[in-house]
Amino acid sequence: MEFELTEEYLETIKEAIASQDNAYLTEQMHDLYPADISSILDDLGTDESKYILQLLNKPLGAEIIRDMDEEVRTDFIKVFTPEEIAEYINYINSDDAVDILNELPIQAREEVIAFVRSKEKASNIKDLLRNEEDCAGGLMAKELIKANINWTVTQCIEEIRRQSRKVDKIYSVYVVDDFGKLLGIVSLKKMLLADDEAHIADIYDPDIVSVESYRTAEEVTELMQRYDLESIPVVDVHGNLLGRITIDDVVDVLREQAEQVEEDIQIMAGISDSTDDDANVWQLSRVRLPWLLIGMAGGLMGARFIGIFEKDISILPAMAFFIPLITATGGNVGIQSSSVIVQSLANSSSSENMFTFSRFFKAFLVAIINGIAISSVVFLMNFILGEEIRLAIVVSCALFSVVILASIMGTVTPIALDKMGVNPALAAGPFITTANDLLGLAIYFLVAHLLFHF
Amino acid sequence: MEFELTEEYLETIKEAIASQDNAYLTEQMHDLYPADISSILDDLGTDESKYILQLLNKPLGAEIIRDMDEEVRTDFIKVFTPEEIAEYINYINSDDAVDILNELPIQAREEVIAFVRSKEKASNIKDLLRNEEDCAGGLMAKELIKANINWTVTQCIEEIRRQSRKVDKIYSVYVVDDFGKLLGIVSLKKMLLADDEAHIADIYDPDIVSVESYRTAEEVTELMQRYDLESIPVVDVHGNLLGRITIDDVVDVLREQAEQVEEDIQIMAGISDSTDDDANVWQLSRVRLPWLLIGMAGGLMGARFIGIFEKDISILPAMAFFIPLITATGGNVGIQSSSVIVQSLANSSSSENMFTFSRFFKAFLVAIINGIAISSVVFLMNFILGEEIRLAIVVSCALFSVVILASIMGTVTPIALDKMGVNPALAAGPFITTANDLLGLAIYFLVAHLLFHF
Repeated sequence: MEFELTEEYLETIKEAIASQDNAYLTEQMHDLYPADISSILDDLGTDESKYILQLLNKPLGAEIIRDMDEEVRTDFIKVFTPEEIAEYINYINSDDAVDILNELPIQAREEVIAFVRSKEKASNIKDLLRNEEDCAGGLMAKELIKANINWTVTQCIEEIRRQSRKVDKIYSVYVVDDFGKLLGIVSLKKMLLADDEAHIADIYDPDIVSVESYRTAEEVTELMQRYDLESIPVVDVHGNLLGRITIDDVVDVLREQAEQVEEDIQIMAGISDSTDDDANVWQLSRVRLPWLLIGMAGGLMGARFIGIFEKDISILPAMAFFIPLITATGGNVGIQSSSVIVQSLANSSSSENMFTFSRFFKAFLVAIINGIAISSVVFLMNFILGEEIRLAIVVSCALFSVVILASIMGTVTPIALDKMGVNPALAAGPFITTANDLLGLAIYFLVAHLLFHF
Repeated sequence: MEFELTEEYLETIKEAIASQDNAYLTEQMHDLYPADISSILDDLGTDESKYILQLLNKPLGAEIIRDMDEEVRTDFIKVFTPEEIAEYINYINSDDAVDILNELPIQAREEVIAFVRSKEKASNIKDLLRNEEDCAGGLMAKELIKANINWTVTQCIEEIRRQSRKVDKIYSVYVVDDFGKLLGIVSLKKMLLADDEAHIADIYDPDIVSVESYRTAEEVTELMQRYDLESIPVVDVHGNLLGRITIDDVVDVLREQAEQVEEDIQIMAGISDSTDDDANVWQLSRVRLPWLLIGMAGGLMGARFIGIFEKDISILPAMAFFIPLITATGGNVGIQSSSVIVQSLANSSSSENMFTFSRFFKAFLVAIINGIAISSVVFLMNFILGEEIRLAIVVSCALFSVVILASIMGTVTPIALDKMGVNPALAAGPFITTANDLLGLAIYFLVAHLLFHF
């Protein structure tokens, strides 16, 4: 019942393609669900994938392309002409069609749309392409069943019959007035149990949760989860019905977010790639080594840097005692600041501006409070433990400066990386920790040099 | 249309409860969706919540209790007698009923079930209570519509009518044989468009994705996402239909996982609590300070520890140069090892044993490879840069030992924490980084002492 893609099976398929064993391939594909064929294509070369697709009919091929991994598909789709792509688009819902078109250059998009058979579908797709990808308008499909409030159940069932090939999943019928304004909903269950002569007006439920097209994907997810909805209608600011979002799109959004967060954790932890428990020892070592080497390079640079102050240390060896305190504090503050920003970035929609003055000012104030707290406590401890007073002052001044600078770096770096289109989680990883270590050392020895020698 | 719970609104509700303004409260609750009332109750005291519930009818109250936050509900439910709880359970699906019962002590569960009105429901709940919570059997509800393959569409619609109060969301009808074995599915859409006299046997789709009751929640999620399902039937090993899992349960599972991962990141970054962008400066500082103070305590201990070797440093100040290299490497290796384990723990089902010999052996081998790599490179660099040869040997020996020990600690600690019921992500946070710093220092100075003085 369940399909698992094994190396052996993939080999068999590849050999069948190489030997053009069409009978075998067709039989195999016939036994699989489209989503499973998609996952096979994800692991095949573009030419092999195209070979398989041309053995299958267009509606099935369309489903398979729809379910492919986006990254693989972006490359794969290039081997088709706009006309061929349009052939498949004919059989795909408008929201999925838009996802595919967004992977093409703008000119190719226009060409594909020109080849789409149904004028209505072409115009639907054009509408949707205008919306931003991660808002309700970008997630919705135009395909849905709507019924005029004045219809009878029989008229409504006729409409479902008429549209049934276009709309594959029907959970309910949206009820609108003569001007297309959303009034309510009738579940299929209610329709099935209602008398055929009943009027929609008498059986529909006006208590409906809808979402405006400009809402973010997060807001849509939150609404659908809170009210346990399997689909939600999308409306414009005047309440006119524009489309609907089905739960499978939301599940995809949630999945992508979860994968993003896992990747962020790996980057923060300094693991360059995701490896599963089955990876061998060499693979596991290789994945971890790059970051360790960066840390090592930083450590060696730190060693050269401290070397400049060798004379200071030989005069006052106690200076060396506080090196770990300084570097660890810089590292901790840097990771805290950048993690907060990385999470805010992950949770905010792309349109929000993170670069606000108030955000920086706040981060700065927090740094000052924590800097004062930490350096005071350390000064007190050093005083109690009978450390030399001048050294105690140097350590606390350096700590305070390190906290401030590490906070600023931890706040600015992820935002800057994000602006540059680089994953901001990098800023919470070993690279910045290493940079903060060096920064802390520099401050410490410079402060010491200033206070002791001038 | 959308409900947002403000502080002011909550105050108004609290005042209305205090002044027993039942008319106002009833009117307010009437305007809200049950899920919104649940979120109000999440922020009220137990007595206030109970006051609101007794103003509403039982079916509505049942929905509200179902949608409450689990942690709040666990305390709240204690104020009810078993009989009162059973009153609400009567109106809740079996899967949600089991979630609530699982929050009660075992004896109270039995008492509640004894009060449940329908014998069938009571026995369904007892069946489900036996299943583990995070497997298909623990997620499923017993409520579903099944049709015998020999029925006509009319008979099937009659069955839906009969069960319609019990089963609130109907996406499709499951087709079974005389012995309850799952044969296929008929969507409501197909039923609506079919002729009333048609036989189920002629219109059902035998191509159905189902899941065995022992499968994990992750497997269920993966299947429902891959095949875009809004519900999936659960079967026993013989293929008999046991229940169904709806997509809202899967969305809840995904949400909980996402929240868990966010919490893990916070712990790893050393932020003691989740605070949003609106928190004021004091709140933000307070959330970060505890971990900074732990790091500080570690740093001060490190200072005392290095102090023991003050004489060594005054003889060879160059020893101090490599302190940051040693501590940073220990920290990086520790975080890498523990993050890998934390992710494995998060992704594995609770029943899997992480404490295997092969896992440790692998971690040990990876540590040896990376330890050799890092210490060789550092030795080479020190040699090229003209560092004293004895010091270069000390540094590389210490680095090698630090990598091995930090790997072992990073592997063992999260597993041990997990066994003790503590969030294993703690092991990837500042606490262990600090411990690794100290460990690294100890190894470094002990190795130096041994090599220089004996």
